[in-house]
Amino acid sequence: MATNYPAAYDPVAVLQHPDFKILEKGVVPSYDPTKNLATAYAPGANLYLIEKPYPKAREGEVVVHVRATGICGSETSAQANPSLVQHGRIGDTMVVRDTCGAGHESAGEIHEVGPGVEGLKKGDRVVMEAGIPCGQCEFCRIGRYNACPTYVSILPRRLLLDPPYHGMLTRYHLHPASWVHRIPESISFEEGALLEPLAVALAGIERAGLRLGDPLLICGAGPIGLVSLLAARAAGAAPIVITDIAQSRLDFAKKLVPGVKTILVERGVEPKDVAAKIKAEAGLPLGLSVALECTGVETSVQTAIFAAKFGSTVFVIGVGKDYQSLPFMHMSANEIDLKLQYRYCNQYSKAIRLVEAGYIDLKPLVTHRFTLETAIEAFETAADVASGAIKCQILDKAL
Amino acid sequence: MATNYPAAYDPVAVLQHPDFKILEKGVVPSYDPTKNLATAYAPGANLYLIEKPYPKAREGEVVVHVRATGICGSETSAQANPSLVQHGRIGDTMVVRDTCGAGHESAGEIHEVGPGVEGLKKGDRVVMEAGIPCGQCEFCRIGRYNACPTYVSILPRRLLLDPPYHGMLTRYHLHPASWVHRIPESISFEEGALLEPLAVALAGIERAGLRLGDPLLICGAGPIGLVSLLAARAAGAAPIVITDIAQSRLDFAKKLVPGVKTILVERGVEPKDVAAKIKAEAGLPLGLSVALECTGVETSVQTAIFAAKFGSTVFVIGVGKDYQSLPFMHMSANEIDLKLQYRYCNQYSKAIRLVEAGYIDLKPLVTHRFTLETAIEAFETAADVASGAIKCQILDKAL
Amino acid sequence: MATNYPAAYDPVAVLQHPDFKILEKGVVPSYDPTKNLATAYAPGANLYLIEKPYPKAREGEVVVHVRATGICGSETSAQANPSLVQHGRIGDTMVVRDTCGAGHESAGEIHEVGPGVEGLKKGDRVVMEAGIPCGQCEFCRIGRYNACPTYVSILPRRLLLDPPYHGMLTRYHLHPASWVHRIPESISFEEGALLEPLAVALAGIERAGLRLGDPLLICGAGPIGLVSLLAARAAGAAPIVITDIAQSRLDFAKKLVPGVKTILVERGVEPKDVAAKIKAEAGLPLGLSVALECTGVETSVQTAIFAAKFGSTVFVIGVGKDYQSLPFMHMSANEIDLKLQYRYCNQYSKAIRLVEAGYIDLKPLVTHRFTLETAIEAFETAADVASGAIKCQILDKAL
Amino acid sequence: MATNYPAAYDPVAVLQHPDFKILEKGVVPSYDPTKNLATAYAPGANLYLIEKPYPKAREGEVVVHVRATGICGSETSAQANPSLVQHGRIGDTMVVRDTCGAGHESAGEIHEVGPGVEGLKKGDRVVMEAGIPCGQCEFCRIGRYNACPTYVSILPRRLLLDPPYHGMLTRYHLHPASWVHRIPESISFEEGALLEPLAVALAGIERAGLRLGDPLLICGAGPIGLVSLLAARAAGAAPIVITDIAQSRLDFAKKLVPGVKTILVERGVEPKDVAAKIKAEAGLPLGLSVALECTGVETSVQTAIFAAKFGSTVFVIGVGKDYQSLPFMHMSANEIDLKLQYRYCNQYSKAIRLVEAGYIDLKPLVTHRFTLETAIEAFETAADVASGAIKCQILDKAL
Repeated sequence: MATNYPAAYDPVAVLQHPDFKILEKGVVPSYDPTKNLATAYAPGANLYLIEKPYPKAREGEVVVHVRATGICGSETSAQANPSLVQHGRIGDTMVVRDTCGAGHESAGEIHEVGPGVEGLKKGDRVVMEAGIPCGQCEFCRIGRYNACPTYVSILPRRLLLDPPYHGMLTRYHLHPASWVHRIPESISFEEGALLEPLAVALAGIERAGLRLGDPLLICGAGPIGLVSLLAARAAGAAPIVITDIAQSRLDFAKKLVPGVKTILVERGVEPKDVAAKIKAEAGLPLGLSVALECTGVETSVQTAIFAAKFGSTVFVIGVGKDYQSLPFMHMSANEIDLKLQYRYCNQYSKAIRLVEAGYIDLKPLVTHRFTLETAIEAFETAADVASGAIKCQILDKAL
Repeated sequence: MATNYPAAYDPVAVLQHPDFKILEKGVVPSYDPTKNLATAYAPGANLYLIEKPYPKAREGEVVVHVRATGICGSETSAQANPSLVQHGRIGDTMVVRDTCGAGHESAGEIHEVGPGVEGLKKGDRVVMEAGIPCGQCEFCRIGRYNACPTYVSILPRRLLLDPPYHGMLTRYHLHPASWVHRIPESISFEEGALLEPLAVALAGIERAGLRLGDPLLICGAGPIGLVSLLAARAAGAAPIVITDIAQSRLDFAKKLVPGVKTILVERGVEPKDVAAKIKAEAGLPLGLSVALECTGVETSVQTAIFAAKFGSTVFVIGVGKDYQSLPFMHMSANEIDLKLQYRYCNQYSKAIRLVEAGYIDLKPLVTHRFTLETAIEAFETAADVASGAIKCQILDKAL
Repeated sequence: MATNYPAAYDPVAVLQHPDFKILEKGVVPSYDPTKNLATAYAPGANLYLIEKPYPKAREGEVVVHVRATGICGSETSAQANPSLVQHGRIGDTMVVRDTCGAGHESAGEIHEVGPGVEGLKKGDRVVMEAGIPCGQCEFCRIGRYNACPTYVSILPRRLLLDPPYHGMLTRYHLHPASWVHRIPESISFEEGALLEPLAVALAGIERAGLRLGDPLLICGAGPIGLVSLLAARAAGAAPIVITDIAQSRLDFAKKLVPGVKTILVERGVEPKDVAAKIKAEAGLPLGLSVALECTGVETSVQTAIFAAKFGSTVFVIGVGKDYQSLPFMHMSANEIDLKLQYRYCNQYSKAIRLVEAGYIDLKPLVTHRFTLETAIEAFETAADVASGAIKCQILDKAL
Repeated sequence: MATNYPAAYDPVAVLQHPDFKILEKGVVPSYDPTKNLATAYAPGANLYLIEKPYPKAREGEVVVHVRATGICGSETSAQANPSLVQHGRIGDTMVVRDTCGAGHESAGEIHEVGPGVEGLKKGDRVVMEAGIPCGQCEFCRIGRYNACPTYVSILPRRLLLDPPYHGMLTRYHLHPASWVHRIPESISFEEGALLEPLAVALAGIERAGLRLGDPLLICGAGPIGLVSLLAARAAGAAPIVITDIAQSRLDFAKKLVPGVKTILVERGVEPKDVAAKIKAEAGLPLGLSVALECTGVETSVQTAIFAAKFGSTVFVIGVGKDYQSLPFMHMSANEIDLKLQYRYCNQYSKAIRLVEAGYIDLKPLVTHRFTLETAIEAFETAADVASGAIKCQILDKAL
């Protein structure tokens, strides 16, 4: 029997519940821990505060009091890609069709434990994996559960599941116990909420085959690029070059990892020319061994390819245009492998180990903090380039 | 000290040698084993018979009496890509700038052995690896000698080495002994000359990670597609689907490997629709695990991507347009790896073992045979779609 | 929620059921399809016919009418290792402590379908995977479900689960629908029952990294060695050398795969000397690239190591002595990887594809056939070296 | 043509040269930069100071003024294994039969440049790779040049090449330019001389497949164990547990990498029990993912195996007894891969990058320093457990 219950997370059931309520735009409610306050996207690129029913923990489930949730670049982006909040869509395939809860980078405390749950008790500090595979299909059986066709994704997702499942930016969140991971006291809720983007970066590093001493290019110094930078430094990539179109982000990268080499990408400069600068900065005329492309922008993908050494891997974490024009014959003549990423699997335990061991310090990434009541402001700040925000988080105090 | 001597193969030295002579167009010379008869490309997509000086075997070198040479699709193609003979160029980077010998798929007999050569003697049956790496550079040291920057390529090659080295479609060919491979009596010279395209296919199969029982798509039933089909069948790929735009080639494929499933690609049909037919024919609604794309045509690459299962590899052996538009987000959402090939390395011993063991029968591929004196006709036949030629070979009788 | 219900297969529940009955030794019952006739091991290396209750298909389960079951070398062996029937044990860890049903290589027809089962109906031809993982643990999540700690194994298994679960050598067998694989009409029940040992061999080939053209040594021409031979031939291993201590088995191997090279291992000959003969027979003085060791016998493992080329893999499918003395420094100086196998995972679909495609012909392996009523005789024949049996199968006719 | 000239390094030629001289035992010569002072092993576990002829740089060669050389555990060991100095042998295969120069961990300055050498000039700071492969054989061609059968090893080596080539613990050392690696100003000669053991550790980490976040066991806190610890920390292994039989070495490890967890191995404790302590200390009841076994001691290899998780790799860098008894069935039931190491290949550039980037700080490892004139004392100190020496180095001042 599958462990994911699409029905349990049925967004329509939430929308039609008598306790469901959309709060008036612009009003900041007062703190009331009895309310399951949440945010929701709605058609037309709108974002609302909502009240949801308090969930019931069935067999194998827990209710988590969400203490921290980060806003993801896919939800609102200061960069070029359309995003759920600004445009109500990501590419052609992910479109918001109905009201739906936001948030998929969250940590919290176990608030209630359903029947049959072992190893978790009220008060335990946890993170929730942002999707629940079935455990039975062909992809689950080979360990690539990110491909599970009945995956209950709390990440933004495809039309098929439209309206999507409700997110974790809510006070009380229902989750299968087996997809909740305990975190130690030494990891704060803020850091816990950053384990989700870290899982993205770690999946990229694993599938890209990045190894100790590999010269690495990271394209883009946004949140995923920066988390990838931290993780790649922990993996011993050397040297590391990072690119961005904003000097402020490169400066931030340099503060995070002083040894990183930075390249400012100026609009209009040819990818081949940017690549030449990257190779020169790295001191590697033959090119770099691995690229983690974190923007999904066509010219950036091309740049990564031109900066790559014969036999290297360009790994794309970012999402972008449906079709992209790639320097095919250059890839052929240099046996450059292009790989791309969809979600992640089997990364949370590792992410927790690395943060616990002190190898990766996520704390500096949180630049702006908000309460659940002012969550709308968090999205606005995250979407405002001038804010200088890296990661905006919404925090809810202990009950 | 490097084992490749670019100087030794210096095409200019050949062109300026007093024994060098371009034969008059249209004249078929009579058989004269004392002449080192050869063919050469020339600017303007021309092809000539030439006479070259008889080469001198220095330390570590042998002179081979070439007994069989195949014409490669890159030299003259019945399909869409520009080719050396028809267009004087491949893509933007390989352009014929001066007279240069053709041929890189050859087998023959040792005719003369230079000083210091061990393990080879006059009369030994051999194939010559179609390029000579330096053995010392960073790429040679990691075993990817196909990337050697001073590779003396007898394959069509880059401007940098323009005019390119002289080919093996000649009566007497000079080669370093260490890049000559002995073949047993059970392998004919015709088959021996087919070991070069087999090496191409085997490199693809190896780098694509094709394994026993993997469902496989082969795009294109030209010579490389057909050799790949034979090799993939020997590797236990199951099922195998092959595509082409010519029914006659699909029929040929079916004769070679009766179990293969064939899909005729009609011009104008969308790649997604062709992909749907491929998946249906394979009985695999989730897609195939590996694709060997042997055409380099953009729509065919797109088709391979759409026919691929989550987590699979699309491996491109073919060469084509410099830039190609690829369904980037589909590749992302399905974690489809794109890999491409440049030459090959470390494939000849394996190729010989497989043919010797009877696992791969290359003989049916030779559809047309010519003498060295009528080599021009061989190229014309190879270039003529109506000829139905798969592989045209030029044979020279025993001395 | 886990998909394996250890309770459902609780052997004690079967033993204590009122319908459970041990038949008198030596008596051959008459055919009665209403009886769930089975075999069972018992302490003291005994084997009985038993009658078990007819199972009830719960949610997600099916009852299979088992039509063919093979006897595995681990159940009774003509060779050196202790086996369940002859010795009541395998090694120190698997000991029969109570009456328990035998059989784990089975195919049959769906007889009854439990609630909620999709895609299967009465009469469907199926094979049952010989173990049921939980789908939720750390190992299941990474796709190595053979390591699942709560695996309901129908294979012989560890003390922890003693008495073990009842086997599939029974008329009516209960199985979770999601671990049943449909087979096409073109695969007979006899072949279907051989898919389990084929899965063992395929797992070995996959994890050993065997690729097209790899020179291969197979140690042991018993059922697993022979199935491995068929699969390795299908994978394009070349050349293949197989060893055994019985010339008759080598002759059988030669009939199955005419190109295989055989080496008779004489007792008392040093492993290094046997290895030298293997390398000479293969024509590979540097050694072979992969070994599939199918005996688990210490001297045979040593032989495989000495016959291996620098950088090769010796993969052990066989089971044997708990501690074995290995030529450690020879392995070190030749970077020979030693890998071993525990059950298998994700092999059935591939096995079915390969048999369906006609790449692997399992039929010749069945040398002796018995009815369910004469199953004891089948074990005796399998255990008798003089019988020349390769695979004894117990068949039950259509209802 | 091969790039290694065994003749050039012919130890007999050195021994028979008129300038060759064995210095009287116990005499410490005065500093004289015109003398090519060196050390040599001799039969009977003796060690002498010698004077060698000043070498002549031929085409492609350089003479290096060696500035720093470390003493390797294989040359003199405080632990259990026989070593060249103490016993005149390593295992059964490496025996000193005649006088031969010691030293293979060296860095220095280019002193003279032979004809045809590009990219190197007098005064350049370099390290010399401790062996020279042929660049042409089957193993060189696949990038595993450590298996080259005509490798001119400056490391201790096999009987076949007995007496072995002269080492680098000499004032003026001849080396092929293509196997010399430049080091930047930021890397001292002492650190440069430690790049050789770092190359050993990096090869182990690469072949063991160690990745970011992998829980790791290191067996043995001697020089190779400690260098492996530094490299594994740089690779992001987490957690790391290290074992040793000496508390002082564990304390040293803890100073090098504060986060490491240490386990003191007491003689007589069963490997299974040590393994249990390791798993408990790591907080990983299922075991660790990778082990780097750096002792070669049988009980330590067994411990590593028992501490390993299902599906993990035990990688042995250490050398030890020719035959070792391993828990075969435990390895089988847990699919534990055993891999071993022979020299290294393609590690120097990476080693230089990692030290230059500041990821690996080798400096604390040098605990004792000696002049070339007092080199004998260096070996005695290295061999004396009570000295507390980790790495003894012999330094020669600038000319």
